[in-house]
Amino acid sequence: MTMTFEDAAMALVEVGRRLDARGWAPATAGNYSARLDDGSIAITTSGKHKGRLTGADIMRVSLDGTPLTPGRPSAETGLHLALYRAFPDVDAVLHGHSPHAVGLSRAIPDATEWVFRGHEMLKIYPGIDTHETEAHLPIVDNSQDMEAIEAAVAAARLAPGAAPAYLIRSHGLYSWGRDVAEAEHILEATEWLIAAELAEMAFRNGSVR
Amino acid sequence: MTMTFEDAAMALVEVGRRLDARGWAPATAGNYSARLDDGSIAITTSGKHKGRLTGADIMRVSLDGTPLTPGRPSAETGLHLALYRAFPDVDAVLHGHSPHAVGLSRAIPDATEWVFRGHEMLKIYPGIDTHETEAHLPIVDNSQDMEAIEAAVAAARLAPGAAPAYLIRSHGLYSWGRDVAEAEHILEATEWLIAAELAEMAFRNGSVR
Amino acid sequence: MTMTFEDAAMALVEVGRRLDARGWAPATAGNYSARLDDGSIAITTSGKHKGRLTGADIMRVSLDGTPLTPGRPSAETGLHLALYRAFPDVDAVLHGHSPHAVGLSRAIPDATEWVFRGHEMLKIYPGIDTHETEAHLPIVDNSQDMEAIEAAVAAARLAPGAAPAYLIRSHGLYSWGRDVAEAEHILEATEWLIAAELAEMAFRNGSVR
Amino acid sequence: MTMTFEDAAMALVEVGRRLDARGWAPATAGNYSARLDDGSIAITTSGKHKGRLTGADIMRVSLDGTPLTPGRPSAETGLHLALYRAFPDVDAVLHGHSPHAVGLSRAIPDATEWVFRGHEMLKIYPGIDTHETEAHLPIVDNSQDMEAIEAAVAAARLAPGAAPAYLIRSHGLYSWGRDVAEAEHILEATEWLIAAELAEMAFRNGSVR
Repeated sequence: MTMTFEDAAMALVEVGRRLDARGWAPATAGNYSARLDDGSIAITTSGKHKGRLTGADIMRVSLDGTPLTPGRPSAETGLHLALYRAFPDVDAVLHGHSPHAVGLSRAIPDATEWVFRGHEMLKIYPGIDTHETEAHLPIVDNSQDMEAIEAAVAAARLAPGAAPAYLIRSHGLYSWGRDVAEAEHILEATEWLIAAELAEMAFRNGSVR
Repeated sequence: MTMTFEDAAMALVEVGRRLDARGWAPATAGNYSARLDDGSIAITTSGKHKGRLTGADIMRVSLDGTPLTPGRPSAETGLHLALYRAFPDVDAVLHGHSPHAVGLSRAIPDATEWVFRGHEMLKIYPGIDTHETEAHLPIVDNSQDMEAIEAAVAAARLAPGAAPAYLIRSHGLYSWGRDVAEAEHILEATEWLIAAELAEMAFRNGSVR
Repeated sequence: MTMTFEDAAMALVEVGRRLDARGWAPATAGNYSARLDDGSIAITTSGKHKGRLTGADIMRVSLDGTPLTPGRPSAETGLHLALYRAFPDVDAVLHGHSPHAVGLSRAIPDATEWVFRGHEMLKIYPGIDTHETEAHLPIVDNSQDMEAIEAAVAAARLAPGAAPAYLIRSHGLYSWGRDVAEAEHILEATEWLIAAELAEMAFRNGSVR
Repeated sequence: MTMTFEDAAMALVEVGRRLDARGWAPATAGNYSARLDDGSIAITTSGKHKGRLTGADIMRVSLDGTPLTPGRPSAETGLHLALYRAFPDVDAVLHGHSPHAVGLSRAIPDATEWVFRGHEMLKIYPGIDTHETEAHLPIVDNSQDMEAIEAAVAAARLAPGAAPAYLIRSHGLYSWGRDVAEAEHILEATEWLIAAELAEMAFRNGSVR
């Protein structure tokens, strides 16, 4: 499938509106990108509210991070580019912020992953065709140094059973896919799984009394 | 009442938008169907986001599951058809996914039902005209084999006091009705009942301290 | 202020859309009314989804309940009319259904009221001009007999410090005001107060661990 | 940047719609303001639903509170003006009401602040460029006397590490910024931080069982 800058920009603007409507794009948090036909990357610029983007808030960078159009790319551009370099068939990366995902990451401060088990929703993840399985969501500590985050998560996100997503503690969730739609599906499914497990815990706490 | 394919397709597209707005249609989860005048079934195709369906994402199958128009029917088509065969006056089936319903099903892993008691909202269920009653929501384990789910739930959904809905554990909620509107009312009412009981538990936990 | 049937119908249609968007009008639950210039009452008919009303779903009844236009008035019309008879300056009554309010009413099955104390939001209630006060939300048991509900709540809703609202256990919340806007403000404020106290309990449970 | 009354009115009308959509503007609660080019302040009038403002619901007052156009300014105008006088580079002030923030303030009735630690989201606050820090959200008791609130919070909001926001107990949250967009970002980020910490507590309560 061909992806022009104009198509990518429109898709990233729209995804921002949807994530904001779900409460996952507060203030200026979040950054979204897509790989274009020429191998360069369309990515949101820094400092805009992601629920109210326009095409002018999307810029292009090369796969090594060189800006190809005017604008200040997100400080987390490096994390996007590392995913494009690691996964040649990945053409979109989304980074959202939900209170639930961040709350989970802080509640288990020493954990390096959260494991989802037995959910039908796991079939949204590519390569999973049964609920009788588990998926590992890597959790990595936050850092001012993007390369440190990338180094910490690289092995985990390549491990067997790793979800096409990872969670930076006290920060937010990354997801990726073959196009913006798939990356958004994975983000939605992962957030849904976290919300379902929180509801499960609440019902367990209630039902034992 | 007459139901053409065009009417059914429009109703199913609309119901997808509404369920998505409530957070019950993440990623590509969910499938919706309606019985047409000629006895065939209009059903959502597989793999689309249910909040952004168009008429092209609805296909027709016969009551025995034979595709009558191009498209790949949902893997869960069999569960829809079993309901149409069991209940001649049922003309719509909806399958949604809320974190609350799935969380409930996982919190009580050995239960085969959840009982709602004394709610005014129970009057939404056909045949109930007083809150001084109870309704049984069957809960069935998930399976890769749709026939196994159908076999497990068939007796429970025909039992006295059974809600016109059932819950597949770690998966989601089925509801049905005489038309798409009624099936949606039953889905909304059932999700509302689950949310109200979760709030009840939270207040109980809080008020005892 | 003058209130024609057309104005009232439009206001009730709009309030239904807003309550539905907040999740307080599931399935066909809820009924809304307004007093007209001629002393008759515009009220929603039975059995429609309140988030998708049209003007055709509003009818007129006299203050004693006699239908003045075609249609089946809500089974709870008597509770609306009792409020109009009791409070001559009340020109609108709303009845909504939130999981939070119903959950609260069930968590305290023997209580006849819930008391809000010290909230700035109490100033939304007419006659309250300081947060250094309390307001009593009457809670009455549900009944199939609307006259029994009315008899049970009549004294409580006239008592000093009573909120312009009451809660029917396992059922939902009534609010009223001098116009539809005020009745909606009181409904929103009361639901907000319940949600704030639930959040307070959750933080208390969390902070003690 | 220049800010005319018309620009400010439009921005305040829009921010009201957005805060209402998030559930932070129930009934007629809330007030919003912006500093204009001539040094006067545009502020919402009292008693309107903030989700349905029009330009006619915005008035002008001088920095000492003298009305410059017809209308009844919010009773909390003094709190807005104190912020404009204290911070010459602040050109917008927002006051919203979420159940979460108010619930937090009531759960810790003796606390004079809440401390956010280690969140990436803290970078939304001006002057913070690392998550390896903490921000102090002052909490002040509510009062009928706006000058008493202002006196109680003045030192705290000027202290090192103070967030550009404060919380009035049982009442709501104030935030400010160099323009309406920044004040809204700070409000959203602060509410998000509170929601994330509530989710963290819920997961902690769940995970220990």
